[in-house]
Amino acid sequence: MASPQKRVVILGGGFAGVYTAMYLERALPKSMRDQVEISLVSRENYIVFQPLLPEVVSGSIELLHAISPIRRLVRQTRLYSREIQNIDLDEKTIHLFPGCRPQTATIRYDHLVIGLGTQLDYSRVPGMREHSIPFRYLGDALRLRNHLVNTLEEADNETDPENRRELLTFVVAGGGFSGVECIAEMNDLLRSAIKAYRNIQEDDLTFILLQSGDRILPEMEEDLAGFAHRILQNRGVEIRLRTRMTAVTATSALSRAKDSDQTEAIPTRTVVATVPSGPHPLLAELDCEKRRGRIAVDRQLRLLHREGVWAVGDCAFIPTTDRYDDESDPGSPPTAQHALRQAKTCAQNIAASLQGKELKTFSFAGLGKLGSLGRMSAVASVMGVKVSGVLAWILWRAIYVSKMPGLDRKIRVLFDWLLDWMLPRDIAELRIFQPDSVIREHFERGQFVFDQGDFGDKVYFIVDGKAEIIIDGKVIDTLETGQTFGEIALYQDQPRRAAVRAATPLDCVTVSRAAFENLLAHVPGVADAISTIVKSRLDGPKSAEAAIGTTEP
Amino acid sequence: MASPQKRVVILGGGFAGVYTAMYLERALPKSMRDQVEISLVSRENYIVFQPLLPEVVSGSIELLHAISPIRRLVRQTRLYSREIQNIDLDEKTIHLFPGCRPQTATIRYDHLVIGLGTQLDYSRVPGMREHSIPFRYLGDALRLRNHLVNTLEEADNETDPENRRELLTFVVAGGGFSGVECIAEMNDLLRSAIKAYRNIQEDDLTFILLQSGDRILPEMEEDLAGFAHRILQNRGVEIRLRTRMTAVTATSALSRAKDSDQTEAIPTRTVVATVPSGPHPLLAELDCEKRRGRIAVDRQLRLLHREGVWAVGDCAFIPTTDRYDDESDPGSPPTAQHALRQAKTCAQNIAASLQGKELKTFSFAGLGKLGSLGRMSAVASVMGVKVSGVLAWILWRAIYVSKMPGLDRKIRVLFDWLLDWMLPRDIAELRIFQPDSVIREHFERGQFVFDQGDFGDKVYFIVDGKAEIIIDGKVIDTLETGQTFGEIALYQDQPRRAAVRAATPLDCVTVSRAAFENLLAHVPGVADAISTIVKSRLDGPKSAEAAIGTTEP
Repeated sequence: MASPQKRVVILGGGFAGVYTAMYLERALPKSMRDQVEISLVSRENYIVFQPLLPEVVSGSIELLHAISPIRRLVRQTRLYSREIQNIDLDEKTIHLFPGCRPQTATIRYDHLVIGLGTQLDYSRVPGMREHSIPFRYLGDALRLRNHLVNTLEEADNETDPENRRELLTFVVAGGGFSGVECIAEMNDLLRSAIKAYRNIQEDDLTFILLQSGDRILPEMEEDLAGFAHRILQNRGVEIRLRTRMTAVTATSALSRAKDSDQTEAIPTRTVVATVPSGPHPLLAELDCEKRRGRIAVDRQLRLLHREGVWAVGDCAFIPTTDRYDDESDPGSPPTAQHALRQAKTCAQNIAASLQGKELKTFSFAGLGKLGSLGRMSAVASVMGVKVSGVLAWILWRAIYVSKMPGLDRKIRVLFDWLLDWMLPRDIAELRIFQPDSVIREHFERGQFVFDQGDFGDKVYFIVDGKAEIIIDGKVIDTLETGQTFGEIALYQDQPRRAAVRAATPLDCVTVSRAAFENLLAHVPGVADAISTIVKSRLDGPKSAEAAIGTTEP
Repeated sequence: MASPQKRVVILGGGFAGVYTAMYLERALPKSMRDQVEISLVSRENYIVFQPLLPEVVSGSIELLHAISPIRRLVRQTRLYSREIQNIDLDEKTIHLFPGCRPQTATIRYDHLVIGLGTQLDYSRVPGMREHSIPFRYLGDALRLRNHLVNTLEEADNETDPENRRELLTFVVAGGGFSGVECIAEMNDLLRSAIKAYRNIQEDDLTFILLQSGDRILPEMEEDLAGFAHRILQNRGVEIRLRTRMTAVTATSALSRAKDSDQTEAIPTRTVVATVPSGPHPLLAELDCEKRRGRIAVDRQLRLLHREGVWAVGDCAFIPTTDRYDDESDPGSPPTAQHALRQAKTCAQNIAASLQGKELKTFSFAGLGKLGSLGRMSAVASVMGVKVSGVLAWILWRAIYVSKMPGLDRKIRVLFDWLLDWMLPRDIAELRIFQPDSVIREHFERGQFVFDQGDFGDKVYFIVDGKAEIIIDGKVIDTLETGQTFGEIALYQDQPRRAAVRAATPLDCVTVSRAAFENLLAHVPGVADAISTIVKSRLDGPKSAEAAIGTTEP
């Protein structure tokens, strides 16, 4: 044998992955501890306690208290806080993307546990990737919180009523637990924060929850969902059922009711996307059996026909019956309480198989469900008992604090709640999320990209769609895929001399002023191409008046 | 008259600006409140309490507790959280950069207060702008904290001893209050955090403080500075006096001792720059009298020969005697306690001049100085009494908490200190600081830009300097200003086939993989130019083996 050690590699830093490592540290008999090396690969060096994420947005708990450092939970495990490049089941190796040095790393395994969870699937709604704020990671919560405060800052000095409405309308897409808890906390934060803004009143705020189904909280019993619906409505959240978000731009959410062919544009600068999730992109390439897009495993959590490979958590389809061909089997549901127990079974089964012992079968019915509705209200259905209102809220807090990994976190969260009850919420805006200098943007038909007289802050390269150039209300030209606009205001350092409007759904790559100056000066080909465009526009027949125009490809 | 109102506009969200607004709200008689509009322009919507910033780095207080939202402090003032484009003293207008809409804003004033402070002056040290972490704003503290945790994450899995040393060496440039407090807290954080890292021991950590003067804390009495020096040394900080930082790269700090012409390269990935500060860039263009680079004012804080314009805080030179031609006058020192009192005098003088009353003369001798040295130690010199050690540390905390603006912040900070004493420090790394996709990078002569076999993560465009292309230890080509390298690994999606080393000090614009793909696909001129380069390199005589090469300009 090349090495006396057995290597167990666990992929994913969510509950499934981290708890598998934790339970495995305990499940191995002392005599084997030196012979088994456990490694965990996680994008972040902390585990996110998702149920508390909405409270980070509202500021009722501090930023870092909804997470727990993985190293403090699994002290005998080697942690790689890296992203995974690929998984090679034939070679039994994992390739990791570089860290601070531009060198990839390779890890070999004897046993592999895949616990990669799911990812937001942006592909179905145009503009969602570019313009909505996701709600999964801690960074998302911080970004959303800063964005919300920023809208208040802008709205306080905005005099145009349309712009004010756009700034003070907040849309959450998805009426499941995550969407409901998110809009509830946003509502709480903003209604309390505006007391510090002289020009914003409560009536100015609009909160809209879009839900494609017939009711919110489809995971919950109908009466509890009804209770939640009424509470949210009473607190000022508008709920639109049977309504799907169809597109997102920087200044609007487009939605369509189920039986309608009319699309409605909701003017807003804040769209939070909580649906839908799809499989992790690494799984698409993975050469193994799948079921409903998830990795097919047996009830011992082993991949089918792949020895030494296991899967746990939301990325795995874990049958609840022994009849694997039962099409009606919904599989073990994708919740944290199930992931925890799968982790335990998986750890025990790996320990057993290393010792040549018999494997256990995973089976867990679930204990119940909890959803917070913001200040002092929640819905809960635990072991068959349904509770709503203040009592459920106390239950919610008690259960989740007891479940938080790490004693220090429990204490910190309890102190946060104490202070939140005494002190006003924070309204500081941390401007640390500088937009990248080269990004994609999406515009819907009829939307203005910029207006005459605007400040020239970037250049646009059309990836797909058409754009109209408008001066004093008159369309003077139409640009297409592959063409460029907006470069003259930067080139000549003056305000926009024409407006640009999307004539179709329009996707652009945009480059910021500073980056554009760097590209012009240093990237071969750019200066020549752009100066040709500018010259033709300023000299050309149309462009003397246009001062904006087309690339002749 | 165009308007019955008088407009007072205050520029700057530091102590000088915010407290001027606060005192002005109080100084105006009730009868005048409706007739005077106070506006404050600040980049951030919060005021940073600088002395607590190092404790944010170490995590002994929570991120948001070293700041206070401006709106809660000045309730009758209109706050613009924007950046200033320019100040027009002739037209009596201020132009603001756009917020979320690409439209600039203009504010007119009758009275203007300039309290813009200073900015880090990057111009004197090559590479400092690109590769050092500044230490002024709250975002800086968060970025530094995350960076420190990241070095531990990387070092824990690093086996190469040189790379480990680079990762675990931490350099702070500047031995004044800010530098000393910063390195003390970094030292505290990391020596406690490594307990969670299995492969890092205390001996692996190196902390270096570079100070160009003969001793640290030049602001303090010599014996107190000596005490601080010994405490830091005993706690594992190496202090290099009479040593100046001469350049910074991504992997090293270059330094030179005063009487030496030898430059020493300290391998490190962490350089914190706390010196030097220069005047705010807006002041350079300002048409007014200056003194020692600061705005010259009289002892009533009025600009000379500019009616209705006032200056306070670090950006102003405020004489301490009535003999304005006294060259030896050092001016009122740039500290928070002075800024506070200048703000009060300025507010009272504006109120007086609006009422046609007599102006006051500013005069303040200072109360004392305090410097924290990390856990349970500090130096203080207050009203002539010198204290050091634990007592000074208690004094430090007591004085600064009492000075914090806002009762809620005082309570939050006290709770933080309580919990910090009970619970372990946080080691979560928030990966929210994605580097921009188009940036500048600086390399020193002899430094490797990348190595053969490295992962191709970006493309390099030489702005200034020369780069050598090396294959198997042999220099096969030298590139110059205007040329490109690193594009083939991205173009062909394979590891680097050659190494590149700086043959002179080398400045590049670099473009990340994702941005480069966007530029290639959509920006006119780029695809043609790059494909010409790639083709000539792959086909050319040298380039078959080079696979990396030069732009023929």
